[in-house]
Order: sequence, then structure tokens, then C-alpha cells
Amino acid sequence: MKAVSILAIVLIFQTSGTVPSGPELESSSRKILTLNTINQNLRTLRMPTNAGPTIIEGRRKEQELKEDKPLPFEEVLWTNAGDPQGMGDPYVTFIHDVLAMVVDANNINRGIYPKDAAKRAKAFLATLENNSIGTYPHPSGIELVRRHVAKYIQKRDGGIPSRWQDIYLSNGAATSIGNVLKLLNCQKDGSKSGVMIPVPQFPFYAAKLQDNGMHAINYYLDEDNNWAININHLEQAITAAKEFCKPRAIVIINPGNPTSQVLTRKSIKDIIKFAYKHRLFIMADEAYQENINEDDCPFISFKKVLSEMGEPYNKMEMASFKTCSKGYASECGLRCGYVELINLSPDVRTAYETYVATQLTPNTVGQAALEAIVNPPREDEPSYEQWLKETTNIFSSLKKRAKFLTKKLNSIKGYSCNPIQGGMYGFPRIDIPPQAIAAAKRAGQEPDEFYSLELLNQTGIVVVPGNGFGQLPGTYHYRTTTLPQMDKLKKMVSDIKKFHKGFVAKYTQNEL
Amino acid sequence: MKAVSILAIVLIFQTSGTVPSGPELESSSRKILTLNTINQNLRTLRMPTNAGPTIIEGRRKEQELKEDKPLPFEEVLWTNAGDPQGMGDPYVTFIHDVLAMVVDANNINRGIYPKDAAKRAKAFLATLENNSIGTYPHPSGIELVRRHVAKYIQKRDGGIPSRWQDIYLSNGAATSIGNVLKLLNCQKDGSKSGVMIPVPQFPFYAAKLQDNGMHAINYYLDEDNNWAININHLEQAITAAKEFCKPRAIVIINPGNPTSQVLTRKSIKDIIKFAYKHRLFIMADEAYQENINEDDCPFISFKKVLSEMGEPYNKMEMASFKTCSKGYASECGLRCGYVELINLSPDVRTAYETYVATQLTPNTVGQAALEAIVNPPREDEPSYEQWLKETTNIFSSLKKRAKFLTKKLNSIKGYSCNPIQGGMYGFPRIDIPPQAIAAAKRAGQEPDEFYSLELLNQTGIVVVPGNGFGQLPGTYHYRTTTLPQMDKLKKMVSDIKKFHKGFVAKYTQNEL
Repeated sequence: MKAVSILAIVLIFQTSGTVPSGPELESSSRKILTLNTINQNLRTLRMPTNAGPTIIEGRRKEQELKEDKPLPFEEVLWTNAGDPQGMGDPYVTFIHDVLAMVVDANNINRGIYPKDAAKRAKAFLATLENNSIGTYPHPSGIELVRRHVAKYIQKRDGGIPSRWQDIYLSNGAATSIGNVLKLLNCQKDGSKSGVMIPVPQFPFYAAKLQDNGMHAINYYLDEDNNWAININHLEQAITAAKEFCKPRAIVIINPGNPTSQVLTRKSIKDIIKFAYKHRLFIMADEAYQENINEDDCPFISFKKVLSEMGEPYNKMEMASFKTCSKGYASECGLRCGYVELINLSPDVRTAYETYVATQLTPNTVGQAALEAIVNPPREDEPSYEQWLKETTNIFSSLKKRAKFLTKKLNSIKGYSCNPIQGGMYGFPRIDIPPQAIAAAKRAGQEPDEFYSLELLNQTGIVVVPGNGFGQLPGTYHYRTTTLPQMDKLKKMVSDIKKFHKGFVAKYTQNEL
Repeated sequence: MKAVSILAIVLIFQTSGTVPSGPELESSSRKILTLNTINQNLRTLRMPTNAGPTIIEGRRKEQELKEDKPLPFEEVLWTNAGDPQGMGDPYVTFIHDVLAMVVDANNINRGIYPKDAAKRAKAFLATLENNSIGTYPHPSGIELVRRHVAKYIQKRDGGIPSRWQDIYLSNGAATSIGNVLKLLNCQKDGSKSGVMIPVPQFPFYAAKLQDNGMHAINYYLDEDNNWAININHLEQAITAAKEFCKPRAIVIINPGNPTSQVLTRKSIKDIIKFAYKHRLFIMADEAYQENINEDDCPFISFKKVLSEMGEPYNKMEMASFKTCSKGYASECGLRCGYVELINLSPDVRTAYETYVATQLTPNTVGQAALEAIVNPPREDEPSYEQWLKETTNIFSSLKKRAKFLTKKLNSIKGYSCNPIQGGMYGFPRIDIPPQAIAAAKRAGQEPDEFYSLELLNQTGIVVVPGNGFGQLPGTYHYRTTTLPQMDKLKKMVSDIKKFHKGFVAKYTQNEL
């Protein structure tokens, strides 16, 4: 915008001669960096959930609304991300009480905050040099927090031991996932390292593998069978992939993203056996482990199952990822997550720790939030009652909305959506009329992108087209979330229903 | 420790038969991940400033002190990192006032914090969905903060325009540096991408290039000439490197790290011309731009010089990096930094933005701190007086300590240290007696590592051996900081002096 206004001034004062071009207007031919000379892995990178076409268009619409341009909706509804607080869910008071004291220790003695929160803040600050939140913590994370995470995991798994030394904190779980993928990327024998990833899948994985020059071994989830993982599909995928790469690891997202299924113990066992057979490192993305929406499908961790299976399985190397961005806390903006890395050989562990140290350190405030999450008020502490009430409300509200969304999406003719058992995403399959598919082709768009952009244009709802997650060819989906508050969620599904009817009518006109 | 206790239980109950080994004790032969099968770029990675041998040994000593083991010192003095708050420097109240309100908006109306800080907090929260610090912000950073950073840079450079769209925030400057290096790593024609880096140099660069499989083109700084950058050295380095790689960029650290020199305008001009001639992307690491310790060597930004040089230089693509971890704020733990990326072609910019989006987002609290730093109290605002006093005190104290350290290190026989013009590091050159060099060799250590570990063993002072930064063969250094509070700094230099005398005496015994 600067460039344009400078240009305008130049045009006023310079009636003859050449007009100097702004940096953005200049031909890129003399640039050092062009699409041909940058990192080729980055050239076609996509991140549809936060930088894809519907996000960019959504921002444009929001700007137009600010400028009072007439649009057929009054607000943009962002359902592209699993961002509960951004969608109106409250935070848990106890966590922010702790934060207010770690960033300003004067608050510990002001009598504003409960004593248990103050105790957490004091103990946390005491682990830092000079009691200062502004100091560099240990590159692997603060020991106190790592110890409490280990206890938290141990409790989750009914007593199966968790060692604090196996816990590595990071700026969000995504950083840890990236670090483990990086570790796995052995370029030694000239063959690419391959990693099995589900399709559909949180697109971070495809992006990160591309970024690293690794091979994505796609395995399809079985939509007709509630997005189950079929071992035959895994076998077929790995067999076919061996021509192109050396398979190194398998990623499982449980509960699923974007698919929201929760794996059964039997399924987890089968996957572990498969991984053992093929010597695959297990990467269990268990970010949504606390977001269970249906009582009859409890979350069971990969580590628990693997441990209970006994030898040789309990010696397998695996990583499990979790984050402050999900669960009841949903502190996406604070960027704190962790990985539990088990059964690694000591020298590999040292290499991982040094690699993590090159990223300097995870942020301290996020670690304080994590501390408050994994070391919450106990029953005899003053914050307990409020904490219990708030967390119970958050979970029950999330559950309610998940059930509502599942039901309502399935009530739309031409839609089918597996139950949102865990997590916060609806990923409906949509019938798109052939004429619309043809129109999408003419527009140079994928059919589900075309559909999602039309939905946005007419309703203001931002979803993420299914092609960004991968989907069986010839099927079309999008990812939306359970997260709008109930009144907005009601309006959303009503708008979607109305839109879909109109869309189908428009693109089946000639057939009538 | 868990493994040991389980083992103990097993030993009690199992008097015959084989003792099962804990995960860490098991042979790694059956592991999927061994040093031979992990990412080979990570195998020999080093990060001496936070994960090197003196750090590991320092942690061990600290543990021993906790266990009341008798040691010749009472505390471990951490001078390995540029971490002012960790070393006892105060934070700036205004910044933490803002933080206490962004993490708990109830504090805005409690009357605890000044109105100008409240205004910043409110404006900051208003940019976030649902006014929530726990929401995902824009992957490139919050627009409000990016706008204020641009204004801040524009003011710094005497009005030379800075566009907010050119500013990208990240979890620390290191992340941005890594991102730009990643962008530059073009593997297209089969040749490695080369990046010129100074020697000595902040080891993050060498580590990141190794991590990316890029070629480090080392150029030596001229210690005898106050660590000047000699264009002939640059020419020699790039000519020699062309055999191994395609040179793509030049990194300049100004003020220097670990060398603490401040570049003159003439030197910057010469480097820009050199970069232009060789079509090198300029990466200006200007993290320490505000930490100027001597009045006669002001900081001048690469962007300012390049802009003032006019065409064709002002069209050159460059990146300048800065961080909340340095300057008066020194908020290392909050992890917020930024890069200003100028003159990029729009399609390359889009690729960069997508890449950044795959890292999800920089943390919101760090961005709030950055907002408070680049949009500080104005003269007519209530926090101004305190802010001015605090920031003035911090800078004057840092200056004083820098001068003191320079002087005292130079007073040690066998030491020479260029003036600490900018930044917070002393990087003295040390005469190490041949017998000590031989002893180091026997111990399998670099001479400066051997020296630094002896220093730690006797005094508790943790420094970083010079070999971790690179140094002219046959010269020995270490990096320490100006950051211990004055009483500790005095003791530190006195301890070093005494130690060095003893060390030299010990390793010249036979010669006496």
C-alpha cells in the first residue's frame, strides 16, 4: 500500500520521465530469489488450514465488511482452525491466574489470586535463574514441568511409568513433531526416508515431509467404516512405497484430525504389530486425547497398549505428542506442547537433545500454562471448585456441540458425516453435482475448493476444503469445527443446509 | 531413576534367572534409531552455547553444590549465554504491566497498572479473535505489532520507509533466521547452497547450515584489527568455496557475536558492494543493535546504508533480524523476534509466508512484549518517567560492565580482548602454554575446551570455549558475558586472573 501511495505522489510531481517502480512492482528477473532459485521443497508447499484459499478469501471478506461493503452475511465465521478460545470458549481461570503471577511476581502477594495458583507460580519461578520469566530455560524444557507432565501421563495410563527425562517441551506440539521427523530423515543410502501418514490427515504432516524432502506414504482411512485404520491398507501402502523410499515411521492421529474417530484398543494393537513387523518408529499424535465426545469410545494411549502388550512390543521406540492448544485449556496462542519419547537409545537421545538445543528454548510462559494444566488444583485447594466447574462446563459444552454438529450435518441431503467421537472437527462428505465439478474445473479449482469458496461467498463461513487433507479420489469433503457457540453453530448448520440446497439446484438446472 | 528403582525391586524378588534390563540399559542393536540410521546432518551437530561440554559440566557442578559436595567455589556462574535477566538484571516494568493485563484482562480495570500500559494491553487484545490471548494469531504475526515494528524501524533509520508487510514475527529471531536459510537452500542443480558466515560466529549458524545440508563458507574476522571484516578475506573465501557450493547469501552479525565489534558505515558499504557483485542475499543479524557500549561507534543498520547508497543497491534483497531477547528488554524466555524482509519478489514472499504458516504461529505473549517494546510510553504518558529511568539504568549499567570487563580482561597477562563495543560478550584471546595444549590432546579435548573446563572446575565460572564459534587455527579464546552484576563481575575477573596465573604456572613447570 505504501508502494502505491508513493507511486501516486511521484505521478503528481513527475509529469515526464520514467516512473520509478516500487519494490513490489519491479520485475523479479534480476532478483536473487525467484521461484526457480528458492528451496524447491518450499515452492509448492501448502498449508490449507491457516494459509489456504478459503483463509485468504475469508480475510478479504472480513476487510470488506469493515469497509461496509454490502455482503450477504454480517460476519465471517472462522471454522478453519481448532481454536476454541478464538471462537468464544472461556479460558480456565486457574491457568491465567498462574500466568498473571509469573509475568508479574508482585501479583503473588496482592491477594488477588488464590493461594494454590500463587503456589504454582512461585514454584515455577523458583526454577528459573533469578526467578525470572525472561530468562532462558533449559532447551528441553523446565525440569519441574517435565516432572509434572510425566506424573500426568502416568496417571492417565493407570500407573504405567513415565520418566520425566523422556518428556521434551516445545513451542507447540507441531515443533516436536517436526523435530522427530527431522531426526528420522536418514539420507544415508541415497533413498528417501518414508513416513506413513493417514489420508485424510492434518496437512502439517504432508507439508513437513515435503519441507524435509521426505516421502509421504499415504494410507487411506476407511470412511465407510468410521474412518478405521485397515491393516490391509497399511500393508498395501508400505509395499507400494518401498519402490520409492525406505519406510521409517508411521504417524497415527488419535483422535483423528480431521476425521475425529477414536481408535479402539484392538485397532491400536494391530497397528503396533504392523509397526513392529516393518520396523517402523511410531509417531502417535494424541493432541486431542482429552477431547472425547462419546462415552463409549474412551481414549487409550499408544504407550499404554504397547506397554501392556509386553515383550517385544514394550521395547519399541515411539513418540507421543500432546499440546496445551487442545484439551480443556485450548491455549493455542501460548504455544506449548510436548513429546514423550520412549525407548530411545542414549546416543540418539543425545543427538535429539542437541538438535532441540539449536532451537534455543521453548517459551517460558507457555511452560507455565502447561504446569498449571498438568498440576491443577487438588480437591483440598481453594481453586478446585471453580476449576472443576469450568473444566466440566467446557467439556460438556464441547461434547454437546460435537453431537449437535454430527446430527445436523447428517440431516442435510447429500451430506454424510461420521460421528465426531473425539476432537473438534466435522469432516462431512458432500455430493457435488457433476455440473459443479465441471464449473470448478473451468475455474481451475478443485471441486471442494470451489464449493467451499461459494459457501464462504454466500454465508461467510470459512471451512477448509477436503483436498487439503487428502481424500479418496472422487470424494469431496471439507473440515469445519464444532467450536462456534451454540447459537452460532445453529445458524451455521442452517446456513449450510440452505446453501447446499441452492448450490445443488444451481448446478442441476439443466437436468430439471 | 525410575528404571533403577524398578530394577531394585526386580532384584529383590528375583533371586535367580536373568535380570530384565531397563530401556536405557538395553543394547541399541535392535533399535530402529541408531547413530547410523538417524539424520546424518544431526549426528555431529553441536550447540556449544547451551548444550556444550562446559554447560553439561556446569549443570553437574550445580547439582553437586546442591548435594553439599565440597567444591572450591560456592556457586556456578553462568556466563555462557546473553541472558541479562537470568544474571540479575531487572525487567522493564512497563512490559510486564502489559503482560499481566493481556494474560488476565481483569487486571485492566483493577487500578493496579498505569493507564498507558492498560491502553496497550486493550489494543493488543482487541486484535485477537474474542479478545483472547489463547487464540491463534496470524501466522506472520499480529498486524498491529507488525505495524508498530515497522514504525520503530523507520524511526531508527531516520525516516527510511519500513513496510509492515515486510515484518514477520517469530518465536525468537533464531526461528526467522532458520526460515530464511531454509528459503535460500536451493537444491536444484545438485550443488549445495553456500552461505558466508563469520568466524568466530554465533554457532547457531553453523548448526543450522549443517541441519539443512548447506555449505558454510567461513570468512575470518580480523582479530588484530578489532574483528574487522576484510573484503579481501571475503573474496578469498567465496572464490575457494565455489568449488564446493553455489554461494547464495552472506551473514553479517553486527554488533558481533561473540566478537562485539560494531561495523562502520564504510565497512557496511563495502560488504553491500561485495554482496551485489556476487549476487548474495544479505542476512544482517542485528540482534544487538541497541546494545551499544561505546559512544563513538553508533549502530547503523544495513538497510539504512543500502537505502542511502541508491540504485542499484537499494533494490537488493535483504533480511534484518532482531529479537526481544536483547536490547533493554532482554526477554529471552518469552521467545519473540522478527525479520524485516525487503525487496522480495511477490511470489517468493508468498512461498515464505506459506512456509511460516506451516509452523502455525508465533506465541501471543511474546508478541505482546514486543508491542510494549516497540510502542513504549510516550513523554506525556504516566509510565514514561519510570520507563525512562529503568531503561537508562539498564543501558548504563550494561555499558559500564562492558567497559569494566574489557579493561580487566586486558589486564591479565596472556589475555587480549578487543573492546566490547556492542552486545554483551567478552571474547578474549588466551595464551595457552604448549604443555597445556599437549595435556588437552591427551584428554581428547580442544585446548580451549580443556582450559574452560579447568576454569569451571576451579572457579565455577561457565564460559564457552572459542572452538565452538570458530577461530583462527592456533589461537584460543572463550566467550564470557558482561552480564554478572558488578560485584560478581569483579569477583569473576579476579578469579579468572588468579586461575590463569595458576594454570600457566602448572603447565610451564618443567620450563622453570
